[in-house]
Amino acid sequence: MNVVFQTRYKASLVKSPVCIGLDTDIRLIPEFLQSELNPLFEFNKQIIDATIDLAGAYKPNFAFYEAHGVQGWDALYATVNYIRQKGGDCITIADAKRGDIGNTAKMYAQSIFDDLGFDSVTVNPFMGSDAVEPFLERETCGAFILCLTSNSGAMDFQFMEGGGEYLFEKVAKKITSWNRLGNAGLVVGATRGEDMYRVREIAGDAPFLIPGIGAQGGDLYAAVRTNYRDGKHLAFINSSRSIIYASGGKDFAEAAREATLELKRQIELVMA
Amino acid sequence: MNVVFQTRYKASLVKSPVCIGLDTDIRLIPEFLQSELNPLFEFNKQIIDATIDLAGAYKPNFAFYEAHGVQGWDALYATVNYIRQKGGDCITIADAKRGDIGNTAKMYAQSIFDDLGFDSVTVNPFMGSDAVEPFLERETCGAFILCLTSNSGAMDFQFMEGGGEYLFEKVAKKITSWNRLGNAGLVVGATRGEDMYRVREIAGDAPFLIPGIGAQGGDLYAAVRTNYRDGKHLAFINSSRSIIYASGGKDFAEAAREATLELKRQIELVMA
Repeated sequence: MNVVFQTRYKASLVKSPVCIGLDTDIRLIPEFLQSELNPLFEFNKQIIDATIDLAGAYKPNFAFYEAHGVQGWDALYATVNYIRQKGGDCITIADAKRGDIGNTAKMYAQSIFDDLGFDSVTVNPFMGSDAVEPFLERETCGAFILCLTSNSGAMDFQFMEGGGEYLFEKVAKKITSWNRLGNAGLVVGATRGEDMYRVREIAGDAPFLIPGIGAQGGDLYAAVRTNYRDGKHLAFINSSRSIIYASGGKDFAEAAREATLELKRQIELVMA
Repeated sequence: MNVVFQTRYKASLVKSPVCIGLDTDIRLIPEFLQSELNPLFEFNKQIIDATIDLAGAYKPNFAFYEAHGVQGWDALYATVNYIRQKGGDCITIADAKRGDIGNTAKMYAQSIFDDLGFDSVTVNPFMGSDAVEPFLERETCGAFILCLTSNSGAMDFQFMEGGGEYLFEKVAKKITSWNRLGNAGLVVGATRGEDMYRVREIAGDAPFLIPGIGAQGGDLYAAVRTNYRDGKHLAFINSSRSIIYASGGKDFAEAAREATLELKRQIELVMA
């Protein structure tokens, strides 16, 4: 696909602001799938089949695949290819949180965009510009850069204060300056409503990825309110465990569909 | 091996403070190796054979392997196994710069320590404690956590000033507080001598990994002086491209040996 990332991002958000996190854990997928040739992919395939008309994005979490080495990489390839085959205005987000010096970052970009074929990737900003820019050079691909995260450890550094601003505000400003092609997005946790509002203020209408809904207990109301403007969603709301493990039985795909529908309904309710 | 990481780290430093960075780039390895079944591993094997008595550590850079998908993972497995087979007081460092929330970080630790079998890993501190601690739970394994990096982008955030300290000083203090098992190390770039001294002051005798020597033009004199105390090296000095690509011809392994010897000699000269 040669459509620019910004256009595809917007189209997929119009379809649905729900991003399904494929944190596919071999210990949590139903017993009857364990005998499949590649249980991780088989699980994902059934989740995708059941939710493709309701989701705007899918986000495989690389840790869960890398833990299985070569078989895990096979599952990643198969999953991203399957989503592309199904079509239907969905973007794929490689949740890999990469970040390294320029020449190394270029190799990671090649791996994720060219080899695996993802549309976008999550990136860590700690090493600064040259660690991020290789992910922003293709206008057909995007990056969601960590800004304010939803975990408890976020307090350690992201709220450091200096020169009248927090580190996460400094990061948000930098990301905005990197956003020349409309493909530099931000990862902003749903667990801190007021701070999310501040980040949206800095970042204008840049792409957002919001984790922390569901199992992590984030504030859905604030996440939607802050990122809904002039009748348009500006952010993907991610849910992983609450959707894909909604049931541990034979009906897991159907239950995932119900949980996705329910999240979509809740989002629409806030907008109404 | 069930020896604690701290003990192995010290023993390998006594053997040699040189860490060889295996940034094995398929486009840069000699022509005659390209027809091998796994050229990445074949290149590494010959480099390891030629340098095992001179190196204290080997550090494969994951980006260069991931860029080749399944074949790259095979090369990683084979490389780390080969180093272990050769023995000889060397530690292995997975240069993967991982960093994600607690339950995901646990999966990355499992992948790198249990599945691939590395002794240690590089980790990104941006997400804070719960993103780092899963890498520090095994006393037989260690983590080198980014503190002050050697790239130009380091200026973007690491030198943010607040409460009378820079972000990198705050990070160094946190890492020191995480170092209960002696296995929490720091990555400190060789390009900034004075700042490196400040980090060593904070971190006591914690493990250090110092990239930026060689192709990146770092200050070897300062790196050695700052990290040599009471007749003991406290840091690994990493060199990647200047060693493994010292020659692009049939003599590449021999040239790598010469370059390793030369770096070792330069380090000894500073200590003298």
